[in-house]
This record gives sequence, structure tokens and C-alpha cells, in this order.
Amino acid sequence: MTKIDEPLRFDVASLLVAAVPGRVTLVGAGPGDPELLTLKAARALREAQIVLYDHLVGDDVLALVPAQAQRICVGKRAGHHTLSQRAIIELMLGLARSGRPVVRLKGGDPYIFGRGGEEAQALAEAGIPFDVIPGISAAQGAAAAAGIPLTHRDHACSLVYATGHLRGEGEPCALDLDWPLLARPGQTTVIYMGLAMLPTICAQLVAHGLSADTPAAVVERATRSDQRTIVGTVQTLPALAQAHGAKPPALIVVGSVVTLHRALGATPAPALCATAASTAACK
Amino acid sequence: MTKIDEPLRFDVASLLVAAVPGRVTLVGAGPGDPELLTLKAARALREAQIVLYDHLVGDDVLALVPAQAQRICVGKRAGHHTLSQRAIIELMLGLARSGRPVVRLKGGDPYIFGRGGEEAQALAEAGIPFDVIPGISAAQGAAAAAGIPLTHRDHACSLVYATGHLRGEGEPCALDLDWPLLARPGQTTVIYMGLAMLPTICAQLVAHGLSADTPAAVVERATRSDQRTIVGTVQTLPALAQAHGAKPPALIVVGSVVTLHRALGATPAPALCATAASTAACK
Repeated sequence: MTKIDEPLRFDVASLLVAAVPGRVTLVGAGPGDPELLTLKAARALREAQIVLYDHLVGDDVLALVPAQAQRICVGKRAGHHTLSQRAIIELMLGLARSGRPVVRLKGGDPYIFGRGGEEAQALAEAGIPFDVIPGISAAQGAAAAAGIPLTHRDHACSLVYATGHLRGEGEPCALDLDWPLLARPGQTTVIYMGLAMLPTICAQLVAHGLSADTPAAVVERATRSDQRTIVGTVQTLPALAQAHGAKPPALIVVGSVVTLHRALGATPAPALCATAASTAACK
Repeated sequence: MTKIDEPLRFDVASLLVAAVPGRVTLVGAGPGDPELLTLKAARALREAQIVLYDHLVGDDVLALVPAQAQRICVGKRAGHHTLSQRAIIELMLGLARSGRPVVRLKGGDPYIFGRGGEEAQALAEAGIPFDVIPGISAAQGAAAAAGIPLTHRDHACSLVYATGHLRGEGEPCALDLDWPLLARPGQTTVIYMGLAMLPTICAQLVAHGLSADTPAAVVERATRSDQRTIVGTVQTLPALAQAHGAKPPALIVVGSVVTLHRALGATPAPALCATAASTAACK
């Protein structure tokens, strides 16, 4: 496995340029459980020659890649990018221009908070052919595994996804979310990558009119064997998450559908693991 | 294949009740392309003994079910439910109580506008064990295949899903959507099952403050071989959809990410088929 600890060792300009660029496939790796890869994604991995993958992609998923393929970890963790987004794109373009097919493997779905849109744009602008294979997003994995049906019509007439991730390299560390949107009642709101900002998020939701009693949950490591669900309200969740030592990757789910977790998350589901650890953390 | 044209032929009460109920697996069939099933869903289908499936599930997906398995089509099309939701649930419970494992196969993701939540609740209340396998939702399939990255950060800071489907059996035919939510700028809005109400939806969005120039698209039969994308604005889309004879199943996507379709939907993608028909319909 090639780990890029020193990005400058990868001198993209020195790659040979082939007459015909390789096709790039942006692949959604899903939420964690490798069984939640699509058939199409699994095939792309089994046939891969070069895989550029993000930090969040698990070893179980990477295990599908042939041993002789080149695997390149390009980051990223909150606050710790192995390569900048720009450098990832340059590397991907350089590898494709050398004529080899490239799999760009991203957690969840490439077009839901995965910056896959930016990567696809760069490929289109460079004239490099590409495909996009969608993936089960973390919210869907969390919903199924934790028993939180996101759009149950007795609880929600719409579903809102937002991200609590800061805008990125070199930008000011402010959460720039549409709080009036997120604070509307009668919907389910899922916030990706927001755990570090959980106290701010909950305080802003209440400041913008959402009842402090609104049920809310943190789902940690959705669909993985050590998944954990921490349930409270918008008011109590930050302290609960801290008390239980919640860590990323985690989703925040806000809305009355969260109350269904107690009934629907309890059924034994061997492979989706809403298990002992989950129950212990539930309030 | 068993088709229930006369629901009363299925007398659920007459089913034998086993000591141990069969496990029910709610399976997301994805958006259409059978390659977008998850590995886990494909396995559940290959091992199925009884499959209850919705009208929208395609033959390519059903082809994974063993020939000797019992397949029961339980609806549903807008305005034409083969069985009511209540009757589907009763049938599912009755079959499970007879001791056989049941696969309940639903288009897209069971927990995103699939009424999977209601079915899971009924199972939990009846003490019948169940699992939920998420599926690629239509919005994700459409995004990947039509080149519309839903959350591209230059275009959207949030993603909103709503449904234009009327509330169902015996209820008044009024669209009860949170228009101020859907009309907010700076987000991507996806409306499931809204094609029949497209003129009303677009008019309401504008009436609630969304610019009439906001890009908007109809993606018809997302990820299937005859997928078609019709692009316009909130103002022009209803007439374009009518002129091109758009038909369900279709999604409405609203927001400036739609403008990326021209660049990102054009790359040849043999299996995801944003092809000739698509280009012809694009304005």
C-alpha cells in the first residue's frame, strides 16, 4: 500500500502522458459495512488497478481491491488532510493522463457531501472520461441500522441534509449553516460531520426556534460492528455525547423520528449491529 | 408469479400460525439499475422464499429471485394501489406468522419515502423480527446518472428531500408541503413522486419567494436504460415536461446544481445511460 505522507514525493508533472487518458470511476464506498457496497461498486473495486481512497474508507472495503493494485490513501480527516482537495484532484488527473484507469473511492455517496462534484468537474474540464457509482450514504446506513426511518410520515414531511464540516483549507472556522431551514419543525434533519460542533449546532437550532425538547441522536460509526446510538433531545444531546465519549465519524439526527429508535432499533440484526453498546448508550 | 388482482383471494386469517414467526427483511431495491443493489440486498433476493414487491421494482431486479420462490406484487402506482398500505402490512404479518422468512422489496430506500417505517413499526408491534437493508435512493441514482452533484458546495449548503405524493387512501387530494422550506435559495431540493403536481409545485415555489430563473430538472426513470433528463427553470419546466411527455417514475430537482448536468451528464457512461434521449430533451 502506498501512503502519501510526503505529498511532494508524488511529482504529478513527471508522470508520462498517454495518448488516451484512463477512465476515472468515482465510487461510493457506502457507510462502512462492506455488504452495503453496490454490486457495481464491488465490481469496480475487484477490477481496480489504482485506487485513490479517503481516510474514512474501511479496511473491509479495501479488501476487495486486488493485492497487486496500487492503493493510495489521500486523506482526509477533520482538521488533518493528508492532501488538500486541490492536490487530490491534481494527482487523480495526473494518474488518468498516464493512461491507466483510476478508481476514486469515497466514503458514502460521492455526490452527497463527498466533494465528488468538484472532482467530476475537474475531470470534465480536463476531458477525462468518468463514471459515478452512487453509494449508500451515512444517513441511510444509520437509519437502517439504528431504527430511525427518516421520512416516517407521522413524524416528518421532509428530510434535510446539511454538513457541520468547516469549509476547508484556509477558510475561517465558522459554521455557515442555514439555521432557519434546519430549525423548522415537522422535518428530519441530518447533519454530517457535525460532532465537533454539536453544542453550537444544538444551541443554534434552539435559538432559531426549534423546541429544546425535540428528539435528537448521535449515530457513531453507522453500520460498523461497533456502531453506537446516543439518544436525547436537542437540549441534552451535547452533554450526553460528551459523557459517552462520542467520536467521529458520527451523524447528528434531529426530529421526532428519533423516538422510533427504541422500538425499531432493538430487533436483533446480526450484520447491522444495533447491539449491546448501542443499548448501553441509549437514554 | 402470483399477482394479486383480487386481494380478497388472500385470506390472511386462514394462514397457519407457526410457533416461531419468519424473519422479515425490508430490502431497498434501489433506483432501477439492478447493478445498484447492495451486495446484501442481492443476497437477500437470491435466498428469498417469498417476496412482496412494489410496482416500481423492475424485472431486472426481480430476476435475482429464485424461480421457485413465491413473488407477490402488492402495488403501488400513484392513483392505483393494488393493495392498500394496511392490506400490505396485514399480508406481510400473516406470511411471517406462518413461519416463513419474507422479503419485503421496496423501490429506492425503505426509509426514504418508502413507508418502510410504517411496516417496520407494524413488525415491531407484532413481535416479528426484522432487518432493514438500505437502498440507493432515486435521488442518488438520478444525481450520478444525470450529472447533478446534489451538494456541490459552490451551489448548495443543504439538500432537501420532499414528496409530492398525495397522502394516500381516502385523504383529500391536497399537496401539504412546507413551501417556505422548499423555496429557500442556496439549497438543492429533490421532490419525489411530484410529476403530476409539477405546475403546482413550481408555482408554489415562486409564490414563496424562489426566483423563477432557478434551474430545475425532471429526471425520468433514473438509472434505467431509457433514463431521460429534462432541464429548464422553475418557470419553464412544467411546459417542457409536458412537451416532452414526461411520465412517472420521475424526480424533480431544483437548484443551481442542475446547471452542472450539461458538463457532467455528458460523459459516456454505458451502464448509467445519460444518453441520446437525454440530450434530445435537454434545453
